[in-house]
Amino acid sequence: MSSKREYTLEELAVHTLRVLRSIGLLLVCQPEGDKPNVMTIGWGMLGVLWGRPIFVIAVRPSRYTFELLERAGDFTINVPSRGMENVVSYCGTVSGRNRDKFKECNFTAVPSKSVHSPIIQECIIHYECKILYKTDLVAKALPKVILDEWYPQNDYHRLYVGEILHVYADEDYLEKLP
Amino acid sequence: MSSKREYTLEELAVHTLRVLRSIGLLLVCQPEGDKPNVMTIGWGMLGVLWGRPIFVIAVRPSRYTFELLERAGDFTINVPSRGMENVVSYCGTVSGRNRDKFKECNFTAVPSKSVHSPIIQECIIHYECKILYKTDLVAKALPKVILDEWYPQNDYHRLYVGEILHVYADEDYLEKLP
Repeated sequence: MSSKREYTLEELAVHTLRVLRSIGLLLVCQPEGDKPNVMTIGWGMLGVLWGRPIFVIAVRPSRYTFELLERAGDFTINVPSRGMENVVSYCGTVSGRNRDKFKECNFTAVPSKSVHSPIIQECIIHYECKILYKTDLVAKALPKVILDEWYPQNDYHRLYVGEILHVYADEDYLEKLP
Repeated sequence: MSSKREYTLEELAVHTLRVLRSIGLLLVCQPEGDKPNVMTIGWGMLGVLWGRPIFVIAVRPSRYTFELLERAGDFTINVPSRGMENVVSYCGTVSGRNRDKFKECNFTAVPSKSVHSPIIQECIIHYECKILYKTDLVAKALPKVILDEWYPQNDYHRLYVGEILHVYADEDYLEKLP
């Protein structure tokens, strides 16, 4: 098992964005008294807001993760390692409402340093995020091309602005990148 | 004069985030029939939304750039080179409402490939962004710690979600980074 250590946001951002745009990242959320759930995300933004390091995610109200985020108030973002392509794909196609994706995927939930939602041990880069702000996308402010492409069912995303409280990675993460 | 060429978002993101968090980036906006204006930003987020590369900026309504963004509908983000620290600081402290910061700073406005707002030739990395969506931060959804720290005058930022239509850099940008 690789030991994990802290890196700067800048060092990890390049790999995080590349994997986000290729196979996707794993978003984990676990409210108190519930089991952890994971979903695959292909969208996300990172940077700085209010003088803090920030990770923004977009989740539709129909998603099981939406209910969990509302109750938990925090989440983790996990960058999968090489060889996890199939489970990342699987976690993007089934809902955790009636199944335990952590179990099915043989994921190990490891306690975070600063939020309730755990990280996935088998992943290589981890962001622990506390939700600071959320806002629902409004149809009338969206261009027609976006409405047509993404919202034929009026299922507008809620944007969650998460403060990155910790970001860390496996010491050998560079060798394990997908 | 260095020639500029396209790079991937990932390649440039790491440097963009580092400069954003150290000296700041230069946001340029120019509506039709107006002169270009520049302001320094220390906040910003980049990544993916709606399947598109995205740069998000936050601007207060009191800023001159706010009026310009509303009229222009686009902007560019420019990463300064080493040696530009003083002008970046200057562009963050004075308003362009009654002065020409491009002239004062000896910036060369070069036409963009795909938006009306120009880039700054003297910078080394450039993002051309078209505004796809905007949303005003709402006080009641913000934590008290953020309200106290950033909004004692209720001057809430508007978030502008810009689609990155082009991103490019000087061929020797690595040698010229601040």
